[in-house]
Amino acid sequence: MAMIKFLTDEDFAIDIGAAKRMLAEIKTDPMSGWLNVWETVESDKIQSYAKSVQENSDFLVCIGIGGSYLGHRAIIEALGNKSKTKVLYAGNSLSDFELNNIISTIKNHDFSLNVISKSGTTFEPAIAFRILKKLMLEKYGPEETARRIFVTTDSSSGVLRKEAERNGYTSLEIPDSVGGRYSVLSNVGLLPLAVAGLNIKELLEGARVESENIDASEDLSVNKNSAAALRYAVIRTILAQNTFDVEVLATFEPRLRYFTEWWKQLFGESEGKNEQGIFPAATVYSTDLHSLGQYLQEGRRNIFETFICFDKNSGGLSVPEFSDDFDGLKYLEGRSLSEISKKAETATIEAHRSGAIPVFEVVAPDLSEKSLGALIYFFELACAISAKLQGVNPFDQPGVERYKENMSYLLKKS
Amino acid sequence: MAMIKFLTDEDFAIDIGAAKRMLAEIKTDPMSGWLNVWETVESDKIQSYAKSVQENSDFLVCIGIGGSYLGHRAIIEALGNKSKTKVLYAGNSLSDFELNNIISTIKNHDFSLNVISKSGTTFEPAIAFRILKKLMLEKYGPEETARRIFVTTDSSSGVLRKEAERNGYTSLEIPDSVGGRYSVLSNVGLLPLAVAGLNIKELLEGARVESENIDASEDLSVNKNSAAALRYAVIRTILAQNTFDVEVLATFEPRLRYFTEWWKQLFGESEGKNEQGIFPAATVYSTDLHSLGQYLQEGRRNIFETFICFDKNSGGLSVPEFSDDFDGLKYLEGRSLSEISKKAETATIEAHRSGAIPVFEVVAPDLSEKSLGALIYFFELACAISAKLQGVNPFDQPGVERYKENMSYLLKKS
Repeated sequence: MAMIKFLTDEDFAIDIGAAKRMLAEIKTDPMSGWLNVWETVESDKIQSYAKSVQENSDFLVCIGIGGSYLGHRAIIEALGNKSKTKVLYAGNSLSDFELNNIISTIKNHDFSLNVISKSGTTFEPAIAFRILKKLMLEKYGPEETARRIFVTTDSSSGVLRKEAERNGYTSLEIPDSVGGRYSVLSNVGLLPLAVAGLNIKELLEGARVESENIDASEDLSVNKNSAAALRYAVIRTILAQNTFDVEVLATFEPRLRYFTEWWKQLFGESEGKNEQGIFPAATVYSTDLHSLGQYLQEGRRNIFETFICFDKNSGGLSVPEFSDDFDGLKYLEGRSLSEISKKAETATIEAHRSGAIPVFEVVAPDLSEKSLGALIYFFELACAISAKLQGVNPFDQPGVERYKENMSYLLKKS
Repeated sequence: MAMIKFLTDEDFAIDIGAAKRMLAEIKTDPMSGWLNVWETVESDKIQSYAKSVQENSDFLVCIGIGGSYLGHRAIIEALGNKSKTKVLYAGNSLSDFELNNIISTIKNHDFSLNVISKSGTTFEPAIAFRILKKLMLEKYGPEETARRIFVTTDSSSGVLRKEAERNGYTSLEIPDSVGGRYSVLSNVGLLPLAVAGLNIKELLEGARVESENIDASEDLSVNKNSAAALRYAVIRTILAQNTFDVEVLATFEPRLRYFTEWWKQLFGESEGKNEQGIFPAATVYSTDLHSLGQYLQEGRRNIFETFICFDKNSGGLSVPEFSDDFDGLKYLEGRSLSEISKKAETATIEAHRSGAIPVFEVVAPDLSEKSLGALIYFFELACAISAKLQGVNPFDQPGVERYKENMSYLLKKS
């Protein structure tokens, strides 16, 4: 999993020793619960809650924002919602257009709520919870409402924990040792994933195997599968110190659109402090080759690119035959879209390398629970090490509060 | 329309004289057809084609990529599809997952196709056209198929023009003087927009009024509405010359998500050449404050931000009342989401300015055809002037061909 091929290995001096020291520090950090999260999640409890939601609900509305939202949505968008109960997302904006859409979708159906928030006081999810709880109380009354609300929050403090205890909501704990953007494989993400019919054991197994992959090996020679996260961290840090200030996460798999959003938060929030960091951007190809392709090929050379590639693509469609060669594409007849897409991927990587963009390839065998678990673990580990190599704390986010304080002030004064 | 307030006016020296010279050059450029596009579009013809599609089709599948795709999708996503005929989008990727979704959606319904491509040989739309044309021929036979295919292509050359003539497809012309990324208000975008039930005359009127706004005034003093596009172009060029190499287009209106994609192509493809340019990125708030907010607040100071704001937000939802103050938000009871969102916008702009991010505000009165027409014109003009101020041709895209050549080579050799 997650093998990296570098543009040319010689281009970069690799200081793996420092990365290994950072990894050792991360292991003793109080916020390192995600490193072995599969040991602490309550899978059986989650499966049983998921079963009850699947039995009595057409929709599960997940109320959360940022790290309480992007990870599980990324996985569900990538793999599809395989259950008859569909997962929807609220409380991730202040748009009444979006919330009205959710309300129209669910109001004549059975639904449950999963409120995911450490403190319970973040504006967006708290407001959405008020509105959807009101709707639920009107539809089901207080007793049934209590059975349909699942709260994922701090183990002991915060307004949601108190609400859950007072009203008898079913609850799951957000571990103290796992920050929001590293929390997708904890209780935070697993309930919605299980409700969507995805295999959460395989996801966790993918992460666990990836962790062995990294830990077991002492052989850190380049282009081996081992320690790929460490090498990725080292090289992107070197790039960041050498005028490369934008990283583009690129993929030819449009189902990874939300995965790129998860990735942007992970890296942006971990590294973007002390006036440092690498601006995280994303492209979904081939669509974006026809919009950002020109810039990537010939624009300012401040970009490096990390591709997520898959060995196997699910297929199906191929180019149909016509009697004449009306479009000059007769030579493609009978060939599959997945083959053509793979060729486009190769062509793009070659084109960008020829345009002096350093390109990483992170290769997964397929689009599956196990592969996504491994990819998530790979990027989380690489991100934490990168941030530490850049001299910042991978686990805090002091700047996020600024707009909340301004907003609270503006709302209270008027 | 489109008034800009700068962080502080004094921060930037304004060289409007150069921008005015660039504007004069643009006016005589052979690719300046978009400057007065409303004079050349065939609105009546488009309306009559749209009516026939609305009468016989549940779906219009638009086949196109890049400039033949993003503009009209941006407008339809922003304003909603108001007709009973729904516009879908194919040929903008090589994903068979996405194309299979379209096929499942349309196959048991009536549909028409609008193929939009200057040459007709771009891989993605050409392949999608083959597949969907085959499906249509099987469903309707050749005569009815010919009536259901609308081709928007070069006026005289290219494989699609030949196909249209040979098979009797209805056709519209892509003007020679309008490049893809500047084409949304030409025939390229107007047929799908009309089919979606949007008011294309108002769109064009918005653009026309914005053009008067710019041309009429000789008063270029700062903070007047006039010449806002020129000032925006000048100041972002100065920023680009002073270590600001990322521009973030930001909005609190999630319906503008595709508008930001259109904008990224417009600026990225116009400016990103000769190893120059400003990397175009986008954020949709408040969602992205909880992912990229930390980076914007405290990360590397290489970013400036352009907000699209609306004076009037459509509303509806407000914070409901509860007997107790379980979440500490009782003070918000009865207040509308649109008011709260506006406060969040103000709070964010203040927070980012306090974090030393130069912030532009582009203000539109409302989310309507007329406002979007004006915004499109504003950004097109600002973009063309910016590119010229940076010494590059706003209307070519030499780098886009590179991956196509690689891909063609790879596909032909195997």
